Amino acid sequence: MERLEAAGSAYPAPELDVSRWFGPESSLAQLRGRVVMIEAFQMLCPGCLSYGLPQAQRVQRLFPEVAVIGLHTVFEHHEVTGPDALAVFLAEFGIPFPVAVDRHDVDHGMPVTMRAYALQGTPSTILVDRAGNLRFTHLGALAELQLGAMLGELLAEPSA
Amino acid sequence: MERLEAAGSAYPAPELDVSRWFGPESSLAQLRGRVVMIEAFQMLCPGCLSYGLPQAQRVQRLFPEVAVIGLHTVFEHHEVTGPDALAVFLAEFGIPFPVAVDRHDVDHGMPVTMRAYALQGTPSTILVDRAGNLRFTHLGALAELQLGAMLGELLAEPSA
Amino acid sequence: MERLEAAGSAYPAPELDVSRWFGPESSLAQLRGRVVMIEAFQMLCPGCLSYGLPQAQRVQRLFPEVAVIGLHTVFEHHEVTGPDALAVFLAEFGIPFPVAVDRHDVDHGMPVTMRAYALQGTPSTILVDRAGNLRFTHLGALAELQLGAMLGELLAEPSA
Amino acid sequence: MERLEAAGSAYPAPELDVSRWFGPESSLAQLRGRVVMIEAFQMLCPGCLSYGLPQAQRVQRLFPEVAVIGLHTVFEHHEVTGPDALAVFLAEFGIPFPVAVDRHDVDHGMPVTMRAYALQGTPSTILVDRAGNLRFTHLGALAELQLGAMLGELLAEPSA
Repeated sequence: MERLEAAGSAYPAPELDVSRWFGPESSLAQLRGRVVMIEAFQMLCPGCLSYGLPQAQRVQRLFPEVAVIGLHTVFEHHEVTGPDALAVFLAEFGIPFPVAVDRHDVDHGMPVTMRAYALQGTPSTILVDRAGNLRFTHLGALAELQLGAMLGELLAEPSA
Repeated sequence: MERLEAAGSAYPAPELDVSRWFGPESSLAQLRGRVVMIEAFQMLCPGCLSYGLPQAQRVQRLFPEVAVIGLHTVFEHHEVTGPDALAVFLAEFGIPFPVAVDRHDVDHGMPVTMRAYALQGTPSTILVDRAGNLRFTHLGALAELQLGAMLGELLAEPSA
Repeated sequence: MERLEAAGSAYPAPELDVSRWFGPESSLAQLRGRVVMIEAFQMLCPGCLSYGLPQAQRVQRLFPEVAVIGLHTVFEHHEVTGPDALAVFLAEFGIPFPVAVDRHDVDHGMPVTMRAYALQGTPSTILVDRAGNLRFTHLGALAELQLGAMLGELLAEPSA
Repeated sequence: MERLEAAGSAYPAPELDVSRWFGPESSLAQLRGRVVMIEAFQMLCPGCLSYGLPQAQRVQRLFPEVAVIGLHTVFEHHEVTGPDALAVFLAEFGIPFPVAVDRHDVDHGMPVTMRAYALQGTPSTILVDRAGNLRFTHLGALAELQLGAMLGELLAEPSA
């Protein structure tokens, strides 16, 4: 089973570099002191719909102390997954957490924040600890027990 | 349990009045002699993604004699669910059957074929018998056993 | 997909040769005119618990015209799955249909009715038509759509 | 969401008082230093089969550091769920962890260990920390994320 990066060897999570927020704007700097789960997704990605986003919703519901954020990391089909389409998607699927739109980079296929985290695709799950350090990234499905264990461990770490 | 309309009291299924096909063009007239299942959906409708379209795919896989057709019956969010977006959706979600785009009617919220069948929303499932008669329409989830029983009954009816 | 045996080539289903009933006693002779589904199971068989018996319960709930019967075909562990244990099992698991105990045969590993149907293990599903003919036997999981289609076809056949 | 009892206010978990082991014998005293999950079950309890025991198996597979133990806490139907029947059950269902048989008490309906833990029924899940303290008991289904979080927190606690 994959594990959290040890607190001692982790480095600071790159700040979110995004072009727009749906829901309250936020930043990792502002969320310092809280455990953060970032769910990177694309609105027309089947795995995001069938397990990535539903899991993020369950985390938000069960762990009020965890700040859950969606990150729309579009790296294909930009023309049909822009902000207007995303707004409809978020409303129709009842996504309950704030969603940031990753910044498009005309010189690269991958958007800026996705590249800063070296994500390989969607859905990807990112965990940031209370100190703002990047402790885990994962592409694809994650067992609920495993994700729960990592959240439990992060929540048990002291705030400062 | 809802049942098929009896063969004797059923009336002819309205012809598909559509603006475009993804996959081979077809029509109910051409499909006379085959049992037809039409799955009416919208690409950003959660129930269509979680159970309507997956069920239609299972029917296509298990019943090669049944002609399965998707009908994109957009009655909201036209601006972000047009043909370009639908093309991406069908490719990303691997929809294996032909999909027709219901004809938009500027004077009504509902598109033309959806109105002809008096559908109330999406996903809706429509069953047409070998003689071209409309035998069943249903909005929402359908038990697999129930849908299977109706298909088994229709397939057992003589061709002409 | 497996199909029903054609009505013309099917032979009469062997009568149930059982030692005991839980619930109202019955027989294939008495059920002539009805479609019958027999679910052969053992109380300590994992597949019976996870899909065989639940599916039989769904059939009973959705198709009141179908006579659903459980057949306890013990071919191993007789000493701990006798009538006393079975009675507890049926009550705890809320099995809602009549259950017959297949007749033990001291000279064979397999009980009598199981052998008459040439069943290979549990769970097995048996379908008998209104005329009392054996139309289908299957070992293991059955897709709901497929089972539904066979029931729909059998129910559509005339009674006599 | 239910939480672990705080380490500081927890009291020592009662020792297992059992009449027999299937698999290697063990005791909480021997397991000191490890996180322990005890799954209390009865072999003919539907919830134990459908979610309690499968969850315990997933915990064992994902968390090799956690000692998973089954506890057969028979409080009804003793006559058909004795050691012979349990041995068949454990083999047929492939239960991969050691199982202890709670000690029957002729003067009470509930067996001895079940009463020491004040369990109300089955399935019940018990968590014991590395110091041997009782941190959690729960009757019925547990969300995987929630159980995972508690295990993650217990595993993160220092050994001594």
